[in-house]
Amino acid sequence: MNAQSPACHAIILAGGSGTRLWPISRSLFPKQLIALNGDLTLLQETLKRALTHFRPDHIHVVTNEEHVFEVRAQARTLDPRLEAGVIAEPRGRNTLPAILLGLDAAWRATGGETPPTIAVFPSDHMLGDIPRWQAALDEATRLADDGWFVTFGVPPTHPETGYGYIRRGDSIADRSFEVEGFVEKPDHATATAYLKDGRYFWNSGMFVFNGQSLIEAVHAHQSDLGHWWESRGDRPLIEGYTSIPSISVDYGIMEHASRIAVVEADFGWDDLGSWEALYRLGKKDESGCVRRGDTMALDCENSMLFSRGGKLVGIGLKDIVAVQTRDATLVCALDKTQRVKDVVELLKAESSSLAEVHLTVHRPWGSYTVLEEGKLFKIKRITVLPGARLSLQMHHHRSEHWVVVSGAALVQVGETETLLTENQWAVIPRGAMHRLSNPGKIPLELIEVQSGPYLEEDDIVRFEDVYGRKPK
Amino acid sequence: MNAQSPACHAIILAGGSGTRLWPISRSLFPKQLIALNGDLTLLQETLKRALTHFRPDHIHVVTNEEHVFEVRAQARTLDPRLEAGVIAEPRGRNTLPAILLGLDAAWRATGGETPPTIAVFPSDHMLGDIPRWQAALDEATRLADDGWFVTFGVPPTHPETGYGYIRRGDSIADRSFEVEGFVEKPDHATATAYLKDGRYFWNSGMFVFNGQSLIEAVHAHQSDLGHWWESRGDRPLIEGYTSIPSISVDYGIMEHASRIAVVEADFGWDDLGSWEALYRLGKKDESGCVRRGDTMALDCENSMLFSRGGKLVGIGLKDIVAVQTRDATLVCALDKTQRVKDVVELLKAESSSLAEVHLTVHRPWGSYTVLEEGKLFKIKRITVLPGARLSLQMHHHRSEHWVVVSGAALVQVGETETLLTENQWAVIPRGAMHRLSNPGKIPLELIEVQSGPYLEEDDIVRFEDVYGRKPK
Repeated sequence: MNAQSPACHAIILAGGSGTRLWPISRSLFPKQLIALNGDLTLLQETLKRALTHFRPDHIHVVTNEEHVFEVRAQARTLDPRLEAGVIAEPRGRNTLPAILLGLDAAWRATGGETPPTIAVFPSDHMLGDIPRWQAALDEATRLADDGWFVTFGVPPTHPETGYGYIRRGDSIADRSFEVEGFVEKPDHATATAYLKDGRYFWNSGMFVFNGQSLIEAVHAHQSDLGHWWESRGDRPLIEGYTSIPSISVDYGIMEHASRIAVVEADFGWDDLGSWEALYRLGKKDESGCVRRGDTMALDCENSMLFSRGGKLVGIGLKDIVAVQTRDATLVCALDKTQRVKDVVELLKAESSSLAEVHLTVHRPWGSYTVLEEGKLFKIKRITVLPGARLSLQMHHHRSEHWVVVSGAALVQVGETETLLTENQWAVIPRGAMHRLSNPGKIPLELIEVQSGPYLEEDDIVRFEDVYGRKPK
Repeated sequence: MNAQSPACHAIILAGGSGTRLWPISRSLFPKQLIALNGDLTLLQETLKRALTHFRPDHIHVVTNEEHVFEVRAQARTLDPRLEAGVIAEPRGRNTLPAILLGLDAAWRATGGETPPTIAVFPSDHMLGDIPRWQAALDEATRLADDGWFVTFGVPPTHPETGYGYIRRGDSIADRSFEVEGFVEKPDHATATAYLKDGRYFWNSGMFVFNGQSLIEAVHAHQSDLGHWWESRGDRPLIEGYTSIPSISVDYGIMEHASRIAVVEADFGWDDLGSWEALYRLGKKDESGCVRRGDTMALDCENSMLFSRGGKLVGIGLKDIVAVQTRDATLVCALDKTQRVKDVVELLKAESSSLAEVHLTVHRPWGSYTVLEEGKLFKIKRITVLPGARLSLQMHHHRSEHWVVVSGAALVQVGETETLLTENQWAVIPRGAMHRLSNPGKIPLELIEVQSGPYLEEDDIVRFEDVYGRKPK
C-alpha cells in the first residue's frame, strides 16, 4: 500500500498558536493562518502540498473552536471538498488527542473494519522539495504498514537548541533507520556535539502510523485515552474531549513504543519558528536584506524589514529584524528572535490584548477592524461575507450607526427589514433587537460607529445565531 | 538699556520644517509645534522662556501661513496676549526677511521714531540654564546698543559636522569677543581641529541687533530688501513678500557687517536637530536607554524607543533609535540619524504624503484624523474647537455622514440648520451646500464617513470662510 491508496489519510494539526512571530501572529490569529510568504497562508501551503498526495476527502484538519471558521474558509478557497474535513477541538489537548480525533474521522470516512493508516503533519511548517517529500511519505507508509511508528528526521545544519532531536540506530532501508532515542531541546554544547556526531536528526513533528498499531499503543501506554476511545460507542469522539488528559504524541506514544523508525527528511524543512527563520529563508537583496511590504532601507545589512501597516524605514541597520503591524512594532536583534515569546508572556501578564488579537478580528461571518476607540465611541470597519448573517442581537449600552461602503446590507431592526446599498445608512437604537445580513454576491463593507458609555464586545445579547454560538 | 526695557523686542522664528525628526515631524507639522519632551511643544518652551525676559506684547512670532493657526493656538494656551504677536509669512523667505517682518511689527508696536533693539531666537532649540541665558541676553543687548551685530556662540563639546562655526578674535568684555569669521559646516578633521583650537564656537542661530543698525546694513548689503523695506510706506510689510529674495541673516548681513560680536552661550544649548540629540539629551535608564510612550525593552543598551502610536518593542538593540507613529516607523543606527533627511527627500521624490502630513491634519477650526480610506470611502475623526466654524462649502463627488461623538454641532444643509448633540447624526448629500460649526463651550468630536468615487481634499467649493481662506 502506498500513501495514495484509499486507506491512507492525512491529519493536519492546526491548533497551535505561534507566539514567536508576534506581532504578526497573535493567539487568536496564529502563524498557520497567515500568509507570511506570498498569497497562501502556511495552512493553505500545507493543504496544497497534501492535495498532491492525498484525496481531498482523505485530508482531515484538526483545529480549535476559535479558529475553525477561518480554517474552513481558508480550506474552502483552496478546494471546496476540504471544508468537510475540518474538525474543531472544544479545547486544545495537545497532539495525541488531536491525532485520535483525526484518526476517528478518517476511520468513519473509510467505513471499513480496520482503521486506516494516517500521516500527521503540522500546519505551519515549510517544506522545500515536494517530490522528495512524497517519496519519503511512501517509504514511511510502507514501514507503518509493517508495524513501525514512523517519524521524519531532518539532518541538522547548525547546533539548534530550540528543537527536539532523534538519535538513529541501525539502518532499516535506504533512507530509514531504527530510532535509538529522543532527546529534548539540548544546550548549545550538546547540540554542537550532536551535529558533529552525525547520528542525530531534528524531530520534524511529522509522523506516519498504522491506525491499528496506534490504537493498541494508546491502550497499552495511555489507559485514560484508551478508555475514552473505547467507550465512545457511536457517539462522536469529541464528547468528553475537554476531560481527557493533554498529552503530546511524543511523550504519550513515541517514548514508550518499541518499533520506532525515522525516515530521513531530506526535502528541505523549516518550522518557521522565529523571525530569524523567516529572515534566513527570505529572498535577500545584494546587502543581505529581506524586505516585505511598504519599506525603505538605507545602508542596511543582513536585516529584515517587514511591514503590514504603514511605512517602515531602516537606516544603518545590521542584523536587525523590524516588523510593523498597525498596532505594534517589534525591533529585534537577529540573534535574539527567540525572546519574542517572552514579550508575548509579558503582554499577557499586563493583560494587553496585543498578545491575542489584531486590530482585525475574524468571525464566522467575516471580520471587523477597530479603526478607533474613545471614551464614548468606537469605530469599526465591518466585512460581511456573501450570504453570511450576524446573530440576532441587542446591546444594552450602545447605539450603532451603519454606513454601507460597498455591497448590499439587509438590516433588521425590531420587525422591520430594510435593504441598504452603497452610501445608505441605518441607525440601531440602544436596546433594539437587530440583525445584519449580506444577501448579496459580493462582500458587504460597512462602517459602524458605536456610541454609548460602555462599548466592550461583551455587551451583546444573542437571540439566534446561524453559527451555533452560545447566547451570552 | 537692558533686554527688559520697553524698547527691546523678541522675534521668534517659527517657520522651519524639521525634516530630521521624521516620522514625528512632518513638513506640515514641524518639530517646533511638537511636544517632544513633556507637555509643552518646543515653540511653547521658547515662548515660556521669552516671557521670563520680555513683555508679552514685545514677543513676535514669525511663522508661515500653513502653521499660523496652530502657532496662534499654542501661543494662546500659554498666554492669551501672545496671540496678537503671531505673523504669517505668505511664503518662506529664509531668516533675514522673516527678521525684518518681526522688526517692522516691533517698530509699529513701539510707535516711536527709532526702531527698537531686537533679539532673534529659533523656536525649536533647547536651552538649559535660564538665568545664564538672561545674563547673556543683557550683555548682548548692551553690545547691540553700542552698534555691534551680536551672535551667540556655543562652546563645542565634540567635533560636530552639522553646525556652522564662529571663530572668535579679541575679547570685548568678560564673555564676549569680536568675531573673526564664520565657517560653514566643516568636515570631521576640520571640526576636530576647531575643537582643539579653542577659539571656535557653534553658531546657535540666536542674534541681538540694534534695529537702526540692521536697517542700515540691509540698505548697504541687500539693496533689494532695502528697497522693499523703504517702499512700503504705510502698507503692511507683508505685501510684496513673495517677490523678495530668499536669504539668511548669516549670508545677507553677518558675512558683510564690520562690527560683529559673539557672546559665549554657556547656558546649555541644543538644536535638537536629530534623533541622536533627543537620545543624548533624554533621561536614560540603567542600560542607557531612553523610552517614551508605549514601549517595552528587553536586553537593550544605549538605544531609544519612542512611540506615538501602538506598542513598540525592542529586543537586544544596541545604539539604535526606533520611532513609531501611527502611519510610519523609523529604525535607525544612532550614528546615522543625520540620514533621516534623505528619507524625507526620498519620500517626497516618490510623492508620498508621509513627508508632509500626519494622519492628523491641523486646521484653523481644529483638526481631523484620517482613520481609514478605501476605494469608495474615507473616514475621519473631526475635532472642531469651541466657537469655531468650517467654511460654507460643497462637494461635487461625495456625500458625508456625520455622527456626533461628544459636544454640540450646528449643521447647516442648504437653508436648514440643525443642532446635534452626542449620538445624533446628519447626512450631507453630494452637491448640497453645507457648513459645520461648534456653538458650544467644549470641543466637538465627530466621525465623518465620506462616500463617493473621488474623496480628495481638493473636491471642495468654499463659499464663505471665517479664516480668510481663498475659495477653491
